[in-house]
Amino acid sequence: MKLYDWKLAPNPRRVKMFLAEKHIPVELEEVGEPGTFNLKKDFVARFDPYALTPTLELDDGNCLGEAMAICRYLEELHPEPRLMGKDALGKATVEMWERRAYEGAMFAISELLRNTSPGFVDRGLPGTAETIGQVPELVERGKGRLARFSRSADKQLAKNRFLAGSAFSVADITAYCALEFLSRAMKMTIPSELPNLARWFAEVGERESAKSTAP
Amino acid sequence: MKLYDWKLAPNPRRVKMFLAEKHIPVELEEVGEPGTFNLKKDFVARFDPYALTPTLELDDGNCLGEAMAICRYLEELHPEPRLMGKDALGKATVEMWERRAYEGAMFAISELLRNTSPGFVDRGLPGTAETIGQVPELVERGKGRLARFSRSADKQLAKNRFLAGSAFSVADITAYCALEFLSRAMKMTIPSELPNLARWFAEVGERESAKSTAP
Repeated sequence: MKLYDWKLAPNPRRVKMFLAEKHIPVELEEVGEPGTFNLKKDFVARFDPYALTPTLELDDGNCLGEAMAICRYLEELHPEPRLMGKDALGKATVEMWERRAYEGAMFAISELLRNTSPGFVDRGLPGTAETIGQVPELVERGKGRLARFSRSADKQLAKNRFLAGSAFSVADITAYCALEFLSRAMKMTIPSELPNLARWFAEVGERESAKSTAP
Repeated sequence: MKLYDWKLAPNPRRVKMFLAEKHIPVELEEVGEPGTFNLKKDFVARFDPYALTPTLELDDGNCLGEAMAICRYLEELHPEPRLMGKDALGKATVEMWERRAYEGAMFAISELLRNTSPGFVDRGLPGTAETIGQVPELVERGKGRLARFSRSADKQLAKNRFLAGSAFSVADITAYCALEFLSRAMKMTIPSELPNLARWFAEVGERESAKSTAP
């Protein structure tokens, strides 16, 4: 089992944190081109239009893409500790908050970064060698997405220790990896009017899985 | 159990097809404002910023949003026929293709529609009463997303009866509801150079769950 990784990027970190929480060892192969914001050409050529990190290569050569699909596979094979919910309502609640965290935070920071950064000219969307122009208007839209998610997450975290309730889950992993990238690489901090989100962010940051996967 | 529905929209149809495949009866409440592209004000006020269809209200008053979270809940309570995969690799493969279908088709048609249609002025993103401007450049980007997904789906369907392999799954439901909306409401057809996708589209359209949920 080998995980294609891009150590600069927040997306593969979701799977690395998931693996760390479950204490599953994995071989990592870095496919970022050093000193650039590009992935190595042979990786892109092999997986285009889904040349995305993380990608998990199984021992039989089968490859799985999409962070949550990889986590689902690992959760089935290594159920404890459960990171995708226990019963029907628990699993659904994790999935709901994970999807919201993905679209409201992970996807939003991708819109912010890819549509302005000089390193991403002509690569407005990830995963493909095709030319995709930047759309600077998406920066405001990404900020709006992020603000709405952050407000609703703060409200949820006023009543719950973690996003999907009392147990740490993959929803926290997705939100944390996005917001940590935002504060470290993009210098945007959690607004002070969202104290519950800030409390949660500090607490997740103290987990061994967060520390051991920090870039 | 009550499903908040918007019969014009492709997203709640995903859950209705899922319910139909499993023969689970459900009460539907239409929250679209007749004759407009708006949701009813009391629904938006209650669920903002996640005033989205589908939303499932459970008998204890708890509400679940996000189509796939609702499907996950139903799959746990009514496992057969399995629509989210059987074993670890099967579940992961369904999840991978469902996520690709969501971003490459469902999300793409939302970009196409919401950023040009006069019915969606100031509502560039779903789910919130906030004013979100249209970004016409997203039409081209949405078309690009869709084209890439369609090409890769066609390749996958050259070797497999359904998107995630030999069994019909929720990945097919997401892709079908998006592409059917595209061809019916937006008059865009599957390109003739993608015969496997066209074969699959016709076959899924013949299922009872597709027919009984057609708007």
